[in-house]
Amino acid sequence: MDFYKYAKRTARMENPIIRQLLRLGQRQGVISLAGGIPAAETFPIEEIAEASARALGRWGSRALQYSPTEGLAPLREYIASRKGVEPEQVLVTSGSQQGLDLIGRVFLDEGDEVLVESPTYMGALQAWNVYGARYLEAATDGQGLLPEGLPREAPKLAYVLPSFQNPTGSLLPEERRRAVVAWAAAKGVLLVEDDPYGHLYFKDAPPASLQSRRPEGALYLGTFSKIVAPGLRMGYVIAPPQIINRLAQAKQAADLHSQAYGQAVLAELAEMGVIASQEKRTRDLYRARAQKMLGYLNDHMPEGVRWVEPQGGMFVWLTLPPGVDTLALFEHAVERGVAYVPGPVFSASGGLANSLRLTFVSVSEDVMEEGVQRLAEVLKEALATLS
Amino acid sequence: MDFYKYAKRTARMENPIIRQLLRLGQRQGVISLAGGIPAAETFPIEEIAEASARALGRWGSRALQYSPTEGLAPLREYIASRKGVEPEQVLVTSGSQQGLDLIGRVFLDEGDEVLVESPTYMGALQAWNVYGARYLEAATDGQGLLPEGLPREAPKLAYVLPSFQNPTGSLLPEERRRAVVAWAAAKGVLLVEDDPYGHLYFKDAPPASLQSRRPEGALYLGTFSKIVAPGLRMGYVIAPPQIINRLAQAKQAADLHSQAYGQAVLAELAEMGVIASQEKRTRDLYRARAQKMLGYLNDHMPEGVRWVEPQGGMFVWLTLPPGVDTLALFEHAVERGVAYVPGPVFSASGGLANSLRLTFVSVSEDVMEEGVQRLAEVLKEALATLS
Repeated sequence: MDFYKYAKRTARMENPIIRQLLRLGQRQGVISLAGGIPAAETFPIEEIAEASARALGRWGSRALQYSPTEGLAPLREYIASRKGVEPEQVLVTSGSQQGLDLIGRVFLDEGDEVLVESPTYMGALQAWNVYGARYLEAATDGQGLLPEGLPREAPKLAYVLPSFQNPTGSLLPEERRRAVVAWAAAKGVLLVEDDPYGHLYFKDAPPASLQSRRPEGALYLGTFSKIVAPGLRMGYVIAPPQIINRLAQAKQAADLHSQAYGQAVLAELAEMGVIASQEKRTRDLYRARAQKMLGYLNDHMPEGVRWVEPQGGMFVWLTLPPGVDTLALFEHAVERGVAYVPGPVFSASGGLANSLRLTFVSVSEDVMEEGVQRLAEVLKEALATLS
Repeated sequence: MDFYKYAKRTARMENPIIRQLLRLGQRQGVISLAGGIPAAETFPIEEIAEASARALGRWGSRALQYSPTEGLAPLREYIASRKGVEPEQVLVTSGSQQGLDLIGRVFLDEGDEVLVESPTYMGALQAWNVYGARYLEAATDGQGLLPEGLPREAPKLAYVLPSFQNPTGSLLPEERRRAVVAWAAAKGVLLVEDDPYGHLYFKDAPPASLQSRRPEGALYLGTFSKIVAPGLRMGYVIAPPQIINRLAQAKQAADLHSQAYGQAVLAELAEMGVIASQEKRTRDLYRARAQKMLGYLNDHMPEGVRWVEPQGGMFVWLTLPPGVDTLALFEHAVERGVAYVPGPVFSASGGLANSLRLTFVSVSEDVMEEGVQRLAEVLKEALATLS
């Protein structure tokens, strides 16, 4: 057998650019400002060890047996109370990424239109490409989605990251949240609200979620990856019970249920108060790192490079003058010892060449300034070539 | 919003019969011989507690961070050495069910043909229904697949459970394994070999896997659910590296990676020798329970009911005279205090009405005889109505 006959959809799964970027960015001596991963020093290792012992002691074999597809009851109840919904509105998933996949599986026929922000989270595009989604892009500014640019024709789904967006870090203000919800209600569009970073605010909690304003017409994706640890792969979807039922059917075929042991451990962590303390600990660290990075950007970036100061989350988004191509520049930057994520990775249409994403959370503080300086040098040269 | 516009494929995800059966079978006082779940008393709770502490101690935050989609290196290496393949041929999955889903995602276009045994594992049908598979059924007897009945036209995939099949418990003998592999090679058909029970033999280990006879043209699905614990959701696919690469691409979009913590715990369990001891412990228990159940069947079943003594695994398959409808009989059986799984659940075409599956592993020994007696009474009455 010389080759294998793959399904047609596999052609839509390939993403050679991202893979190549990841490979390049891992070179020795490169300071990576590219990662989308939490700071490992926030992980509550000892608390997870304790919660594991407690879970096995209290739950015994029930933490190790096949369990309900929707999730273990105490964890669903905890999530429901945390989010002000009923347990029947909660599906436990293997990270938010699985929530995105299941939503695609249950809602998207080939060619269905999904409204996404420009830029948007690339993992959602990867998840929905599998199902043949077509994307409509909604313009954004430093405060997120621009409601006046929302389309007249109704897409099937509208995907929004209102709080400390990935990649821009922007926070959608109250009046825009109202406008987006009003638009969705008027058009009969199902909102998909992705909120991995909402608990990571530096000063004030974000305005109320879109889901809470329109519970019958929204799906909300949450995760414990950013406030406990991503290696637990524990996320959730909040949706009307009828939709949860469909998503659970889809999940049963996909992997039966998420790890029971991990769910029991997370329920114990919640009871131990660890989730609340993690939120505070992570916020404090990320606030401090964001301030540092913003200081370095101010100190070193050449004129013409702009950014909006993030009020939470993990990222800052740099916009350069038109003509700079951050994708073409990437290999050169890596040679100069710094990695970032080029803007086009976050664009459903491959645009946004003159922008890039930096993280401030997973880069150690002793090399952060050096990383920003290296990047500033690379950008200065690029800007000089333009003029 | 009065209703939601689901994708067309959701119509293929519904399985009201199985859901209703599950609900009915959980009634108070019903002895369930229906379950497909391992005996919880085999779960190594203390060893998992120890392995968890070891994993966090040795791996630290690496057990809790985002990790490679293909799986943690030490676990891939352990699986590879266990199965006599290279680590590059191994993808760690969230249980075998996810392996089935990813295979469907990577190989099946709508309308593609998959050869399945009659009867076959219902979870595979659920997984592939999502992708619009059509099924060709291959006849079986008490020794599994009948090679002479294999089709002349090549299906896209051929799905086989050669060792202690679910639901029949049958073991495909050496000469039939050779014949199936020869057929697949001649037709250029990719084999999908599902082997959750191969390690649960009562006397002799099964003949060599199909995959080992044709590594370039086979995918092998393994799991730790039946020898450690299903609640860990740890399975794997073995395939050519080129296919593993495609499956990993698909998995990245589906859930990024399987739980890193659980993988580290499993790698520790392997190093502690727990997997080997679990195999022995589980075999011993299941062998004893199978003998008990076979004795009770001999004692109580009316004439006309036939079964093949399983040499491993978790199930025994009863064949009744034509005309008995185990699906129609199910509710009555539950009223009489016993549950089983009706044959049609395992049929891609809804046939096999005169057969049913019993488990001997997850029913406590003090009620096993009572359960078999109740079922025997129900079947006696049904047979009396026939004549």
